[in-house]
Amino acid sequence: VTATVPPAVALAQAIDRTGSIACVGLDPRPSLLPPGLVDAMLDAHGPGRAAVGAAFVEFNRRIIEAVTGHCPAVKPQVACYEAYGASGWLALEATVTMAREAGLVVIADAKRNDIGSTAAHYGQAFLGHPPGLDGAPLAGLGADWLTVNGYLGADTVEPLLDAGDGGVFVLVRTSNPSAVELQDAPSGSGTVSDAMARLVAGWGPDRVGAVVGATYPDQARRLRDLMPDTWFLVPGYGAQGAGAADALAGARPDGGGVLVNSSRGIIGAWQERGDDDWGAAAAAALDAMNADLGRAAS
Amino acid sequence: VTATVPPAVALAQAIDRTGSIACVGLDPRPSLLPPGLVDAMLDAHGPGRAAVGAAFVEFNRRIIEAVTGHCPAVKPQVACYEAYGASGWLALEATVTMAREAGLVVIADAKRNDIGSTAAHYGQAFLGHPPGLDGAPLAGLGADWLTVNGYLGADTVEPLLDAGDGGVFVLVRTSNPSAVELQDAPSGSGTVSDAMARLVAGWGPDRVGAVVGATYPDQARRLRDLMPDTWFLVPGYGAQGAGAADALAGARPDGGGVLVNSSRGIIGAWQERGDDDWGAAAAAALDAMNADLGRAAS
Repeated sequence: VTATVPPAVALAQAIDRTGSIACVGLDPRPSLLPPGLVDAMLDAHGPGRAAVGAAFVEFNRRIIEAVTGHCPAVKPQVACYEAYGASGWLALEATVTMAREAGLVVIADAKRNDIGSTAAHYGQAFLGHPPGLDGAPLAGLGADWLTVNGYLGADTVEPLLDAGDGGVFVLVRTSNPSAVELQDAPSGSGTVSDAMARLVAGWGPDRVGAVVGATYPDQARRLRDLMPDTWFLVPGYGAQGAGAADALAGARPDGGGVLVNSSRGIIGAWQERGDDDWGAAAAAALDAMNADLGRAAS
Repeated sequence: VTATVPPAVALAQAIDRTGSIACVGLDPRPSLLPPGLVDAMLDAHGPGRAAVGAAFVEFNRRIIEAVTGHCPAVKPQVACYEAYGASGWLALEATVTMAREAGLVVIADAKRNDIGSTAAHYGQAFLGHPPGLDGAPLAGLGADWLTVNGYLGADTVEPLLDAGDGGVFVLVRTSNPSAVELQDAPSGSGTVSDAMARLVAGWGPDRVGAVVGATYPDQARRLRDLMPDTWFLVPGYGAQGAGAADALAGARPDGGGVLVNSSRGIIGAWQERGDDDWGAAAAAALDAMNADLGRAAS
């Protein structure tokens, strides 16, 4: 099925189906896990890396159950899993499988990048099929989208696309304070970010989106002019300080074309409520986020 | 021990001990494995991802045995392993353990990058200790160095350093053809690469090195002026077309400060010789590389 529907079309369909433009960041860390879950996993698995992986899977299982139907997409932050090596990767693989079975669009937030043939391996890992010893294709992670860093040049992005049918969100303007140092450097008639935006626009919107942080809304409006049809993945809403109006600054004139991520604001909502039911807390926080984005859009 | 010796000092000591500035890239792929090894692993493990991981470990085991004492460092390309998910990560972990036990400096070539707290997770993964469910530090991969992409800004590099005692090689000028598009864009009084070089020089040479591709020797000479004391990790020798003189273009005036990587030229040397003894072929190819670099330096 996915081979015949471009990833941008599948994303738009999921947004229509759920009536939401929110993406839930699945970024588990030990400090974000409810005490009851931590105690149960320590009892069952001891203090090592396997316990962390098992806890992440159980944590994500209930988050996914709670948000399915109320948002189009989830975005696992790969660094959170990779910190635990192979144990973390097992948890990442289980998480992606659960999310896909729930019908959610999966964005692997790994910000991968390398040159030529090495980029192709990352494409196989996240979006495609690595070759087995006998040459037959094996299963990869099976994400729908991968975030990538294109600042090494265009030939680091294209091998990722060639490795599978999925899409990539290319970092154009990130939400961190020191982004100005290099991304805002002048390049040709604009900035380095502008040059990246023109590359992204040139690849077309079907399989290439842009990461445009919510913390610089003026930049987002300008970048929309350079990428009129591109899907924007927007980090920075909530915990990083941007509000709904900031997050929607890069929307198309018709209000579409943006997917707004929140991680800690959803999966850490149980901490505010003071109980251990992290699924219910996430569902309530997602409802509030959807309403907030809806008000800002109207 | 490593806590008291900065990674740049440990690297210099390993170079003195072995009389070599060569780094062996451990970049296994099914197409690079000898047929006898492939057949044995298919027989033992079947056609799936576990067989690939087991084959990588056995392949690397004999490479590491063959090159130990003849080069200071090895550089696993993480993408080659990550293509196989958790199975690949298990092989990567085993490879790093074998290399460290052999006394080799280990450079994890992962080109990781992200903002703030997420970069810290990558630092824990490769150079530090991720927290367990009970808060106690767990084992990470245990590499000595990690390659990183700093093009999102300086605040993406510093959390990596804070996460452990290891070092980072920051991408300054990569060896791919389209690097010119963004890395050569003007910035201030020079290029974007120059701005990155100044950031690297500012961090000092003890824990921060630079990746400077061998395919642009004029750039390497210029970048050495901006980073007089920084260690350069130089890809592009051999298979990517650069010769020994190109690879040494960025050396310090005393001839030091460069570590020259070769991957396929060493680990794929068995293909040229037409036999299956990949360890002996790698040792001979490394001897030839050491002699080639020695002639160019004298």
